[in-house]
Amino acid sequence: MGSKQINACVLGASGYTGAEMLRLLASHPFINVTAATANALAGRKLTDVYPHLSSYGGMELTTVEDVDWSDVQVAVSCLPHGTSQDVVEGLPEHVRVVDLSADYRFRDAAVYSEVYARSHLTPERTASAVYGLTEFARPYLADAKTVACPGCYPTATLLCLLPLSEAGLIEKRGLIIDAKSGVSGAGRSLKEGNLFCEAAEGLHPYGVGTHRHAPEIEQELTARFGESVRVTFTPHLVPMTRGELVTIYADLAEGQAVESAHAALSARYADETFVNVRPLGSLPPDTRHVRGTNRCEISVHADRVDGRIIVIGVIDNLTKGSAGQALQNINLMYGFEEGEGLSILQPLFP
Amino acid sequence: MGSKQINACVLGASGYTGAEMLRLLASHPFINVTAATANALAGRKLTDVYPHLSSYGGMELTTVEDVDWSDVQVAVSCLPHGTSQDVVEGLPEHVRVVDLSADYRFRDAAVYSEVYARSHLTPERTASAVYGLTEFARPYLADAKTVACPGCYPTATLLCLLPLSEAGLIEKRGLIIDAKSGVSGAGRSLKEGNLFCEAAEGLHPYGVGTHRHAPEIEQELTARFGESVRVTFTPHLVPMTRGELVTIYADLAEGQAVESAHAALSARYADETFVNVRPLGSLPPDTRHVRGTNRCEISVHADRVDGRIIVIGVIDNLTKGSAGQALQNINLMYGFEEGEGLSILQPLFP
Amino acid sequence: MGSKQINACVLGASGYTGAEMLRLLASHPFINVTAATANALAGRKLTDVYPHLSSYGGMELTTVEDVDWSDVQVAVSCLPHGTSQDVVEGLPEHVRVVDLSADYRFRDAAVYSEVYARSHLTPERTASAVYGLTEFARPYLADAKTVACPGCYPTATLLCLLPLSEAGLIEKRGLIIDAKSGVSGAGRSLKEGNLFCEAAEGLHPYGVGTHRHAPEIEQELTARFGESVRVTFTPHLVPMTRGELVTIYADLAEGQAVESAHAALSARYADETFVNVRPLGSLPPDTRHVRGTNRCEISVHADRVDGRIIVIGVIDNLTKGSAGQALQNINLMYGFEEGEGLSILQPLFP
Amino acid sequence: MGSKQINACVLGASGYTGAEMLRLLASHPFINVTAATANALAGRKLTDVYPHLSSYGGMELTTVEDVDWSDVQVAVSCLPHGTSQDVVEGLPEHVRVVDLSADYRFRDAAVYSEVYARSHLTPERTASAVYGLTEFARPYLADAKTVACPGCYPTATLLCLLPLSEAGLIEKRGLIIDAKSGVSGAGRSLKEGNLFCEAAEGLHPYGVGTHRHAPEIEQELTARFGESVRVTFTPHLVPMTRGELVTIYADLAEGQAVESAHAALSARYADETFVNVRPLGSLPPDTRHVRGTNRCEISVHADRVDGRIIVIGVIDNLTKGSAGQALQNINLMYGFEEGEGLSILQPLFP
Repeated sequence: MGSKQINACVLGASGYTGAEMLRLLASHPFINVTAATANALAGRKLTDVYPHLSSYGGMELTTVEDVDWSDVQVAVSCLPHGTSQDVVEGLPEHVRVVDLSADYRFRDAAVYSEVYARSHLTPERTASAVYGLTEFARPYLADAKTVACPGCYPTATLLCLLPLSEAGLIEKRGLIIDAKSGVSGAGRSLKEGNLFCEAAEGLHPYGVGTHRHAPEIEQELTARFGESVRVTFTPHLVPMTRGELVTIYADLAEGQAVESAHAALSARYADETFVNVRPLGSLPPDTRHVRGTNRCEISVHADRVDGRIIVIGVIDNLTKGSAGQALQNINLMYGFEEGEGLSILQPLFP
Repeated sequence: MGSKQINACVLGASGYTGAEMLRLLASHPFINVTAATANALAGRKLTDVYPHLSSYGGMELTTVEDVDWSDVQVAVSCLPHGTSQDVVEGLPEHVRVVDLSADYRFRDAAVYSEVYARSHLTPERTASAVYGLTEFARPYLADAKTVACPGCYPTATLLCLLPLSEAGLIEKRGLIIDAKSGVSGAGRSLKEGNLFCEAAEGLHPYGVGTHRHAPEIEQELTARFGESVRVTFTPHLVPMTRGELVTIYADLAEGQAVESAHAALSARYADETFVNVRPLGSLPPDTRHVRGTNRCEISVHADRVDGRIIVIGVIDNLTKGSAGQALQNINLMYGFEEGEGLSILQPLFP
Repeated sequence: MGSKQINACVLGASGYTGAEMLRLLASHPFINVTAATANALAGRKLTDVYPHLSSYGGMELTTVEDVDWSDVQVAVSCLPHGTSQDVVEGLPEHVRVVDLSADYRFRDAAVYSEVYARSHLTPERTASAVYGLTEFARPYLADAKTVACPGCYPTATLLCLLPLSEAGLIEKRGLIIDAKSGVSGAGRSLKEGNLFCEAAEGLHPYGVGTHRHAPEIEQELTARFGESVRVTFTPHLVPMTRGELVTIYADLAEGQAVESAHAALSARYADETFVNVRPLGSLPPDTRHVRGTNRCEISVHADRVDGRIIVIGVIDNLTKGSAGQALQNINLMYGFEEGEGLSILQPLFP
Repeated sequence: MGSKQINACVLGASGYTGAEMLRLLASHPFINVTAATANALAGRKLTDVYPHLSSYGGMELTTVEDVDWSDVQVAVSCLPHGTSQDVVEGLPEHVRVVDLSADYRFRDAAVYSEVYARSHLTPERTASAVYGLTEFARPYLADAKTVACPGCYPTATLLCLLPLSEAGLIEKRGLIIDAKSGVSGAGRSLKEGNLFCEAAEGLHPYGVGTHRHAPEIEQELTARFGESVRVTFTPHLVPMTRGELVTIYADLAEGQAVESAHAALSARYADETFVNVRPLGSLPPDTRHVRGTNRCEISVHADRVDGRIIVIGVIDNLTKGSAGQALQNINLMYGFEEGEGLSILQPLFP
């Protein structure tokens, strides 16, 4: 093992984000996966559960209890919220945590308790965790003990809105986020609504007015606007496996125009590898343009109603919206190239 | 032929709305299809082009020029806009017209010219045509010479919004319609974007800020509000064949609440066969709940932003959004039961 | 209730075949559904479980134990095999049984025991049950106490092969049936392989060399050939909801040709409503041509290998392959028109 | 440019195989794409036509006539058959050709003429072309002037059958290949059957008894068996974008068993990177297990009919079945690592 190498344990490897994490880590030159946990499947070969992960050879899934943490530097938790903090609190002190659940996303544990309807085990950890929207978190990652990776919808939404709110180009009132996600966003849980025969050839909204990603978006916008923000947020389930698209309706601040909004976004991301703002006048992106990659594509459009703009953002919910962004964060935590293990920029087409 | 029977000619039978029209007419007891035109396919058997329409036996597609109109009462035009008026203007005086294109939807031919970028052949016909949103058009249908069937998006949108605007329950400013449609909404034209390999597993908006259904929605809302209305409208292409869903964001008028909005919609449609408003607190509908039927399902939700409601409407774009509503109109034009030939209320599931 | 009317109870209404049975019965003029059971969902409204079955109004699902059988003439069992016979054996004597499971398909209970790995509760009932492949079972249905509806694959396969085997046109050795089914064929059970994200965009065979429908096909072919037959049968799971296609490879008997095979099939089904043999030289059918209908479409093709033919058959696995054929049988059991409640001959297109 | 580097021109870049070729070449360290032709789209930016190929920056599509061949070593033709030879014949002498069409697959131009219904421009080139089924073509690739990449179906079929036929383990008579392909196998041509609305939710066979890949398979099997072979071959169109599966029915030679067949396949591919034979008793592969990769997965099964085996092979039709295998061949032609640019072994899941 080279001096640069680190060892990682993937917690909760049996779900889709866990599987995506393992897929990406498989080609990372400096990170060794020394354990992958899935308590219900412990003892089974990883390749039996996920035939597509053949490069893991004979590795067996294990329980959290059986992990030897002595030589592990980082735990990547792909566990569901609630379960994640239960497990994380039991880890040895030397293990840094990258959490893909919602458990450390709220700086204020009281907000977490209200939104997720359970009290938080360690308010101090969530208060000090870094909110890992990578393009806005770089200064804090190198020393982070706990990184809370953003939800998939907040990732796409905030990448579109933060540069506009920071620059004061949009009104903080009236923001509407109409979001659409592929079925993998609902996870691998065995619910009738996730069955092929019930998700194919249909479309519906869910969590109308009540989805938990709205307060998460508001926390970050409130911090940028410097004033309390409340947003409208409606997610929809779309009959495709991967991909997420947000259609954002925003009122321009006095004196602003679509050109200034576009310029601010373009400037903000000009040097970013994983975020691309299309030229004004371009067609909006399709989720297929980023499928299987860590990229976010953004377009900005004038509305037919004066003073309003429409911003479109697309990501792959399992990559930039989850495991990909987690790896981007890990790279920065350990001084690797930010894009290491994330080099696939060309999605599969068709 | 019974005294009640009429003869119909379907113009433009080779597209999806034409095919849907023929599918529905196949089981109508009082309407005989005496001709179906498709100039490019003239001479081919209907069942060769559409194997699923086996009940039409040996009927051959024909050209418009070859139709014998002497015993035809009604022409159902499924032609594209522009082409439709070209053909309709040449029909004999005694033939009534039910048009599924956009050609007679605007009462003001100048608006049509601007939106569809061509001048109108007969401004007087479009001025007097009945806008066939059936549930709001009944008094005018019996004597209508020309019925303009609404666009699919306007159908779903207006069924949600008209009762609210009539009753003054919502603000006319700030209306946002985020719409999603299956691929059949794009028609049967041979474009790369309609290919399976390019529409499957992806999602994108189109016509952002510029779609032609926005002015059509505005014409009707303006008439109801009694004041000029401008709406935000963004359609998206979803990887499914049929189905359309609108997510409408509206600000309540002073003193109104989600309950009053819901009550107004419920009361308005209490006696309607084809429009159903779900009880307050219900899950929003899925497009699958109306697939292949002439129904519209509506739900109303309080937003997390005070004073704003979210209204969801779903239809099958080819049925209530096109051929089904056309048939509903024809039934009323000729004194048949309104639901004749439209009795399938149970969509296929799964 | 007219004198012609009967009352039916649907057992196991929560699965896809149960739902399909209820969908079809909803428009049957002479059959009243007086109870629908689903033990795990007892007490819930049918329309909550299946929003598409709105015509059932307030009917609640119930347990088997709570059904009042006194005025029920027929039990339609959509229960899984094994469970079905457990329930059926407890029914009152006057109730006739139409079973959609495998429990009464084998005349010899010993074969059942071997194939389904459990002993049979009532060998005598299975010995006397009518194998309800309707087009070949008519003489026996009027007086049948128990009707065993064929499996979906056997239905499509036998409709193609029985006329050929009866007429001695094909060899009994070497028959190969390569079958493909939509995901609804796997039922509504919550298994990972049935999830949208794991069934979409993929294809695989299952039960290679071991599927339970092979012995069922052999039982019927053996009866027709008058000699023991063994077939090769390989089913595949296809990423679509409904539809089933069998591709059958058969060697012609000495002196026979594709023309004689086609003639025999055409003659056999010339007067059938639900089976159609395409003219020689036609394109093979697509499963879409029969989607949601009770029809079977068959085509016959010469192979490029001399002396071999290829027969293609398509059905909707939930309709002709299950609930539709069950209803066709019930109609004959009670002297209704054979096609009552099955009149939709035009599948939805697109 | 390093001394190892070569320049390539992709002919026919606008179709799916062209796009896949460009996707793979984008990450090849030693091959520069200096031109990509698409006569109908000449002058347009590659990224406008294929937004997913963003790494090609400002490259414009060009016409064949405008290519400067002086510094190009290899032409990769993704043109349709017929067109391909028309263009290839006009290339300068120093350009080596890797052809993905059918134009050089038949060693005997007379067979080509019969199968593809046109005479061959250069019988001598097709006679000397290397049939590029890489695992069986290695000795001939280094010096090949023209490499004919196999069809997608022949690739999957021959990888399964050649080791068995070479070792004399199966009978040459009676081979049946039932094949299934995703819609991308039909190319990007604008035909109604390729539209989303007509390919989704359906399945059908095509070219029954007449498909052009059968003679190609026979050419290779005949060479291995040393005796003329005729096969039954039936392809089916499956509603998914990528992926291909062959289900092969073969009679074992006297004295052979499924174990010896499995052992022969396993031994033959033990050292291969891109072909994997699953252990006897494994579940058969799914096309998803190889999606977007250059791999072929094979399983072998005993049939329930004595003396017959069933062999399953899956590939991605656009990768191992087309552009991936082409690149594997190019690597060997120029002395690169065989897997260069083909390192993605983990398909996207879900």
